[in-house]
Amino acid sequence: MMETPYATPDRAWQQRIRSSFAKQGAMRLLGATMSELEPGHCVIALPFREELAQQHGYFHAGVTSAIADSAGGYAALTLFPPGAEVLTVEFKINLIAPAHGGTLVADASVVRSGRTLTVCTVDISVERGGERIPCGLMQQTLIRIDTK
Amino acid sequence: MMETPYATPDRAWQQRIRSSFAKQGAMRLLGATMSELEPGHCVIALPFREELAQQHGYFHAGVTSAIADSAGGYAALTLFPPGAEVLTVEFKINLIAPAHGGTLVADASVVRSGRTLTVCTVDISVERGGERIPCGLMQQTLIRIDTK
Amino acid sequence: MMETPYATPDRAWQQRIRSSFAKQGAMRLLGATMSELEPGHCVIALPFREELAQQHGYFHAGVTSAIADSAGGYAALTLFPPGAEVLTVEFKINLIAPAHGGTLVADASVVRSGRTLTVCTVDISVERGGERIPCGLMQQTLIRIDTK
Amino acid sequence: MMETPYATPDRAWQQRIRSSFAKQGAMRLLGATMSELEPGHCVIALPFREELAQQHGYFHAGVTSAIADSAGGYAALTLFPPGAEVLTVEFKINLIAPAHGGTLVADASVVRSGRTLTVCTVDISVERGGERIPCGLMQQTLIRIDTK
Repeated sequence: MMETPYATPDRAWQQRIRSSFAKQGAMRLLGATMSELEPGHCVIALPFREELAQQHGYFHAGVTSAIADSAGGYAALTLFPPGAEVLTVEFKINLIAPAHGGTLVADASVVRSGRTLTVCTVDISVERGGERIPCGLMQQTLIRIDTK
Repeated sequence: MMETPYATPDRAWQQRIRSSFAKQGAMRLLGATMSELEPGHCVIALPFREELAQQHGYFHAGVTSAIADSAGGYAALTLFPPGAEVLTVEFKINLIAPAHGGTLVADASVVRSGRTLTVCTVDISVERGGERIPCGLMQQTLIRIDTK
Repeated sequence: MMETPYATPDRAWQQRIRSSFAKQGAMRLLGATMSELEPGHCVIALPFREELAQQHGYFHAGVTSAIADSAGGYAALTLFPPGAEVLTVEFKINLIAPAHGGTLVADASVVRSGRTLTVCTVDISVERGGERIPCGLMQQTLIRIDTK
Repeated sequence: MMETPYATPDRAWQQRIRSSFAKQGAMRLLGATMSELEPGHCVIALPFREELAQQHGYFHAGVTSAIADSAGGYAALTLFPPGAEVLTVEFKINLIAPAHGGTLVADASVVRSGRTLTVCTVDISVERGGERIPCGLMQQTLIRIDTK
């Protein structure tokens, strides 16, 4: 785990990030929750329901991408100073097994945190009946936007 | 535009694809519609609403990915024989400008249709007030699954 | 084709870029030449020889990537002011058909030229016996580095 | 580490792979060597020289891609039966720090080995003066070709 260079003793950064997450209409629409948040690391979970599926009943690749992209973005944001925002530049995702039923979990880690660009990897799996089955892998580039 | 090698005179393939699209819970949840469907080509459109946004009010990258991924998948499927299905192997998306307001449009074309793998590119733009503003670009690999 | 916002009447930018290309030891080692250079556009060509092959006698994917990456980088650089340099952030390449014999051609175009980041696409083909056979497709992100 | 399902007691698979590597003209041209080979895992190393550089004297991104692509391909091949070959479908690489001097090392691992497709990740670093500095990250898709 990384140390947040800008972490304050009162962990204000966690509140800042959780409040940003709460503003993501898309995460609410899907029903996703942020289950872990540490410096350089973020996990987002999403229970299955039919509204999240593609035509064969698996989680839609776009839905999988959505929680993985948010997890990576917030992992990056944990290492930014107050006032800095994050935007996704690009990502690539491999869907290595069909994901269905259970809970989809996107587990993101910062690999490289630069002044302008951050690179994350995200492991995506399905938790079902006590098992964790890998179903996707994302490699993502983000940019830091300094507001004001 | 490509010719569907398996196209039937009555265009049964179009009904097959539109019925598959109708089964995608995720597309219904987002509010997406299939606005064009030709051999090797598919367009999906999605009007903006706050539930589709990330924390700054732009279309969430995952939402953008979702319609682009579906558009590419169905573009690929137009060139498959009846009984063949399509799964996304992987994709990479660049978000080249923030997409907000208006209607998000994902315009997918098959670049290479092989026996096993298909490669698509998807141009993503926002239509707003008569303008079309490019906002993303996807390169996608799909696999054909023969369910005899 | 784009207009170089910084183009000088004497086309000094072309000399600047061709002199940078001449400094790429890797391009010399491969035997690549820059065959076209216009604002937002660059083409690099590479005749086949066995030293460029993988184990089946096709152009090695890394060799294909190398000329495509350089073509994209120089396409981006045509739109930068003097003193600015370019570095590859990342790229994704699909190899859509085996490339062997003839001349490998990487044809790069700038899709989005931002203040910090540039996005290019590169079409890769083999020219052989008067034919041009598509064999690859790259989507690339580059960053502008302002020296001094 | 994975177990080669097809491993023979005499490790014929290792000779098969090393002999395939020896046939890669491109690896000889660059000066790369295969330094580790285990089931699901392969490492390729490449000492720096100016002929491998881009215009700023760093390893050219295409050269970095070339050894990473080969490392991933051979990691995949360790898990294939005799007679099966491997081709790169696509890859995506992030260059997270300039790589110069020392020895470039591409360390590839199979993440998912399916009947048709294999997914690998490759960590790329520079070893210089006893240090190992991460400089790149690849996510790669490969296809198995059964030659009768």
